[in-house]
Formats: sequence, C-alpha cells, structure tokens
Amino acid sequence: MSGSRDSASDPAMRRPDFAAWMGQGNSITQQFLSFGNRPGLIALSGGLPAAELYPVDDVQAATERALATHGSAALSYGAVEGFPELRETIARRLSTERLKLTPENVLITTGSLQAVELIGKALIDAGDAILAEYPTYLGALDAWLPRQPRYAELAYRERWPEAKFAYVVPNFSNPTGAVLARAEREALLARSEESGIWLVEDDPYGELRYDGAVQPSLLEMSARPESTVYDGPVVHLGTLSKTIAPGLRVGWAVGAPEMIRALAQAKQGSDLSTSTFCQAVSLELIRADADRRHVPTLVDAYRERRDALCAAAQEHLSDLFDWKVPEGGMFVWMTARRPGLDTNALLSFALEEGVSFVPGSVFDPSGQASPSLRLNFTANPPERLQEGVRRLSRAVRAFASQRAAAE
Amino acid sequence: MSGSRDSASDPAMRRPDFAAWMGQGNSITQQFLSFGNRPGLIALSGGLPAAELYPVDDVQAATERALATHGSAALSYGAVEGFPELRETIARRLSTERLKLTPENVLITTGSLQAVELIGKALIDAGDAILAEYPTYLGALDAWLPRQPRYAELAYRERWPEAKFAYVVPNFSNPTGAVLARAEREALLARSEESGIWLVEDDPYGELRYDGAVQPSLLEMSARPESTVYDGPVVHLGTLSKTIAPGLRVGWAVGAPEMIRALAQAKQGSDLSTSTFCQAVSLELIRADADRRHVPTLVDAYRERRDALCAAAQEHLSDLFDWKVPEGGMFVWMTARRPGLDTNALLSFALEEGVSFVPGSVFDPSGQASPSLRLNFTANPPERLQEGVRRLSRAVRAFASQRAAAE
Repeated sequence: MSGSRDSASDPAMRRPDFAAWMGQGNSITQQFLSFGNRPGLIALSGGLPAAELYPVDDVQAATERALATHGSAALSYGAVEGFPELRETIARRLSTERLKLTPENVLITTGSLQAVELIGKALIDAGDAILAEYPTYLGALDAWLPRQPRYAELAYRERWPEAKFAYVVPNFSNPTGAVLARAEREALLARSEESGIWLVEDDPYGELRYDGAVQPSLLEMSARPESTVYDGPVVHLGTLSKTIAPGLRVGWAVGAPEMIRALAQAKQGSDLSTSTFCQAVSLELIRADADRRHVPTLVDAYRERRDALCAAAQEHLSDLFDWKVPEGGMFVWMTARRPGLDTNALLSFALEEGVSFVPGSVFDPSGQASPSLRLNFTANPPERLQEGVRRLSRAVRAFASQRAAAE
Repeated sequence: MSGSRDSASDPAMRRPDFAAWMGQGNSITQQFLSFGNRPGLIALSGGLPAAELYPVDDVQAATERALATHGSAALSYGAVEGFPELRETIARRLSTERLKLTPENVLITTGSLQAVELIGKALIDAGDAILAEYPTYLGALDAWLPRQPRYAELAYRERWPEAKFAYVVPNFSNPTGAVLARAEREALLARSEESGIWLVEDDPYGELRYDGAVQPSLLEMSARPESTVYDGPVVHLGTLSKTIAPGLRVGWAVGAPEMIRALAQAKQGSDLSTSTFCQAVSLELIRADADRRHVPTLVDAYRERRDALCAAAQEHLSDLFDWKVPEGGMFVWMTARRPGLDTNALLSFALEEGVSFVPGSVFDPSGQASPSLRLNFTANPPERLQEGVRRLSRAVRAFASQRAAAE
C-alpha cells in the first residue's frame, strides 16, 4: 500500500506514494482553466457566469453594512453549521405553506460543491453505491472520488438497487441542460420513499430560467404538510454563485435535521466553518434581496446569449449535431449524428481552431468515449459565441475529413 | 456495509447508514461551541483569539481597495491553487537568501485546517501511518479521521517507521504550548531526510511570541541554498486567522511543487477554490502589512493575559497541577500531580462551577484518559481568567473530595 517512487530532483530520495484515488482523477477542470490563457481562444468549455455582470457595488455596500452591523462577529470563528442569522434567513426564504423549515434544516457551505463533497464524506464507504444520471456533473464525480464509490444509473420507473443516495440536477442539468418534468419528479420521490434512500437535489441554476414554466422543487414536493420541521429524504443544495458571484463561495444544504447534523460533523474536519466574513456579506445581500433583484438582468443577458449560440449552431452545425434548446441554465448539450464520433479526439482539432468545449466522456462515471459535447453560453458575449460556433464547425469538418482520409 | 437503521420520525422508514468513520469522531469541538451559550460560563476551553482586537477598520479598507483594484476578478471563480498575486506575495514574503520560493510552492487554502485535511486526503489510504506528537492538535485528528489512518508517536532520535508524513506544531504547540528547540528541529529534519517522509510544519502561532528567541522554521532549515525552487520535504502551513481574523478563512501551504500540485488536485473536489473575495481582501491586507503591524498589539495583550492566568494558577492550583509558562501561542497545558486524576471526569465539576477547559484525552490519537488539561488565555480579559482559575480550583477540590468519599 505504501510503496515509494523516485523524486524528480533527487534520484536517491524516495517519497511516499500519494493516495490511490489520486491516480484515478481527471484533470480536465484544471486543464480547462489553463486553456483560458491561450491567446485568442474562445472558451465554450467553462461553467462560468458573465463576470462583467457581477454586482460589485452591491457587494461593496453589503460589506459595509456587514462590518457596521456585525463588527468583529463578522470576522470570528463561527459555528460549524453557519452564521445563525443566515441559516434563519435561508430557512425563512425557502419555507412555503407546505414546507416548514427552521435553522436546524440548514447548513451553510463553502460553495455548493462543498455540500456535494460533504454528502459523500458523510455517507460513502469504499464500494458503496451512488445513483446518478448519466451523464452527470463532473464536479460531483471529482468530489466523491476520494471516497471510492460505485455508480449505478438513476432509474425513474424501476425499483432502486441498494445505494446511499441518488443525485440529480433537476433544473437545467449540467451538462445536458435538461429539466425534470413533474411526472419524473414524482417518480423519483416515490422511488426514494420506497427505498429509504436520500435524494440529493442540486439546484444551482433554478433561477436562470429563460422560457417555460417553473417546476416545484423536490424538497417542497417531499414535504408533509403536517410536519412542523422538514424531515423528508431530500437534501436540497443552493448557492449564491450563480445569482451574485462565485467568489463568495457561499452555498447551503437544506434537509432533515439528522442529515444537517451529519454534514456539520463532516464539515468540521474540512474547514471548521465557511468564512464568517463571506456569510455576513451574503446575509446582507439576501436581506436586501440583491440576488433576486439581480436575476432579471442575468436572465435577459443569458437568454440573448443562448439564442445567439443556438442560432449560430443552427446555421453551422445542424447537419452534424442534434441538440435541444435549453429552457435555462448555462449549457447546450450537442450529440453528433454520427454515433462513432469521439469528442475526446475532436477536442485537439477545436483547440487548433481556437475554441474549446467539454467532451461528454468526462461527465460519465465510467469515463466512456462519447459522441456528445457541452457548450457554455453564459461567459461570452453573442458575437464571440457566434465566432466560437464557426470555429467549432471548421474543427468538426477538419476532424471528419482527416478521419475519412485515414479510413 | 450498507445496513440500515430506523428513522426517528417514522419507524417504517429506513435510511442508509452514515459512513463508518462518522461513529468514531468526537464531538468535543461542537460541544465546546455550545458551552459558549451557558450564561456566565468562563470558557477557557476554546482556541479563539480576542475578538475585540480584530482590525475591523483594516479589513474594511482592504475590501474597498480589493474591489476597486480587482473589480469583478475579486468575485470570480479563481484558479484552484489560489489568487495568483496572493501566491506570489506569500512566496516573496517567506523567501530568504537560503529559501527560494516561487508561486508554484504556494497553495491558498480555506483556513490552514483545510491544508491539514488536504494533506490527509492526498496521502492517506486506510491503514497508512501518520507520525504525530502525543498529545497533538485535535483539529488534525478530526480532519484525518475520514481517511482512517493509523498513528505512531513521533520520535526525534530513532529511525522512523514507514509512514506517509510526520506532523508537528513546532511553535507553541496546541495543546502543550511547547516550542521545539533547535536541536529537535535538526533531528526531525534528519529523520525526514533519511526516511523520505514528508514533514508537515503547522505554524499558526509562530508570530505570537511573548518571550524567548525566535527559532528558524523547518521550511527554511530544510532548504538547499543551491536550489532555485524549494523542493524539500517540509510542507509549511500558515494562516491569517491568528494575526488578522479567522473569519476570513485564508491560510496557505508552502512546499515542493510536486506536493502543491497534489494538494491542488485534492482541493479541486473540496471547494473548487478558496473564496476569491477573501483572497483579494487578504492580498490587500498583506500588501499593506496590516497583519505584521497588528502583531505587537496582540502580543502585548496576550502576554498580559498569559501572565494573569499563570499568576492566578500559581496562587490557586500549584498544589495540584504542574505546568510550564509558554513562551507564546494561546494555551497553558496543566498536568495533575496526582497521576490517576482523569480530566474527562473533572469536566462536569468544572462546568458546575462555571468554567470550561479541554481534557487531555481529546488530543491523544487513541483517546486515552489523561491527567492533563488545556487552558486558553487569549479569549478572555485578565480578570475573567483569574476568576476562571478560581472556579477551576474549586472544581478540582470538589472533585477530589467526592472521589475521596467514594473510596
């Protein structure tokens, strides 16, 4: 287990091996961050909001209020579970007539990715199963890798196999952009109730809806109106990363008190607590409704960008790929009409043309080659998106003709 | 592996078990945070700085500069490794003639506890060994528990057994307050070089020195003057939590580029990156030398508090306990003269008298009952510390007489 290998700088020096999981991860996120430095590259690969729309003045004003109101309490160690007033504010905001939430239903996390990670840390022993959509969120696969889980594909209609939890992004999924219909939500809840398995509802994109009707959350659907404190199977994850800015790293998990206590136990050994400073600033932002007031600006800008990307794709890619125009979120998922096309192999042609995307393989728990790819439409203005699609079209044609020549 | 148990609210509902490690942790930190709410309790149990000394105005000014200088870049997702200018600033600040650091030697973390956790995540498979001082930092034991390590006691003179890394707090150890002498540092480095094992130097308290001479860091001692980029075995952890405020949750790990890359891979699945907002504010604080300018204020206040606690202990506890006056840091470690005294059992007597401390057992990797206890002297003013010691003295005497009556 604890073999050794040579150090690069000193062949005589032998340092211990890293943990086994470290050799299994993919470094695609870091790779894509480094693509950002290529001059002239149009990055359709990222999952980033439009940085020019971050409400910098609102954050400045909220910081002043936070330090004036909370003083040194905004700079102290806080409770592991989060800043009490922020927990309470989120509980109040998400409560409905049917869904009764108290602060003990809420854990504040360092971005909602941390909540994803803590769920794995609290529940998974090596070899335990997670039920996930195929394809699923890459960040979740990364977060759970150190726990060495197995994966099984999430079914809506059949009885679930033994597993610790099921994971879904019901609104504008990353990577597919799909929305779960009401009937699918009901089926998921029925499967969860029947099996007793936790159901993780990761919802970073729900507010970024450009068309279509709002669907009820799994959290609310699973509430029993007679309960005074929510105690159902859903663990609902939210964040300020998409409505204000990701640099605050403030997210939350909402669920049964038993689950929140377990996640807090897991969080204690991760970072003691989320930055109290960022929590106090977030509290002031939410109290002023800064996030909700900002959403229409984002929705207008992102709808225009989605439409620009999809119109360009209609013009330049519709002979080669199929896709569904997403009703919200940040991504378009395209699948090659020719099923043998491997988008891993396509990527170097795209980079050659000056555009990046994420190949579908990285969203598959088993890493299988995929004829699909993910395009982001929020981080670039319309004209860059259009140029990006033209470049991608040239890349696909160059790739196809090289392949044809090789055959 | 994946058994089930009854839910409290619905006997028919069976939810999956939590991970195996969750049953093994201690909840002492959460317990102590909740003690804080008992009216009138004097908490000598915490590890908290003096909140009234946090430089709120400096943080306010640094936030304004951060948003004015970096704008939306202070609110974006950042590189996993940290805000480039902050990595560079820390590399420059810690470099000496002997120790050459570049940004690739630096990872920014969400408090230095996250660095501790990431080291375990990157190196430990279940059953791998960690060499630690006995007693050692409770937060580190919590952080590593999910990786299920074994522990062996760190030796200075003998050859080390096979292990992934050794962990030390060389300056004003938590819990003992002890400082490693120069000869002990040299011995540790020799053992680390001979075995190839990583040596983690956790140094949150180094700047809080009230008497005595500064010792060189293990990081600097291990540098080879001929290296242009540090590539030694030491992973040095620092933080702004003690010199500015813990609510920023900004710390750093400094080490060989190979180790920094591994820790970044581990961090990616934990929280993507430390709050860019907090990093930008920290950068502006460090650029203005706000932390170093603030240290003399802290040192003066904490020296007075240490002296007040130790003088009161001399008056009220010296017949029952032995201790060494610490040269710095935040804690006094007291050991009962009567070796059979179990400070776990003493705790309820202390709470009854209105004072808390941390029993020594929680700092022992095997959780053995201990005749020692840890007292914090930074979070309370002198007169509260004196009253706390008087209460503790009464508690020990009540405990001893109850025990005598029972025998």
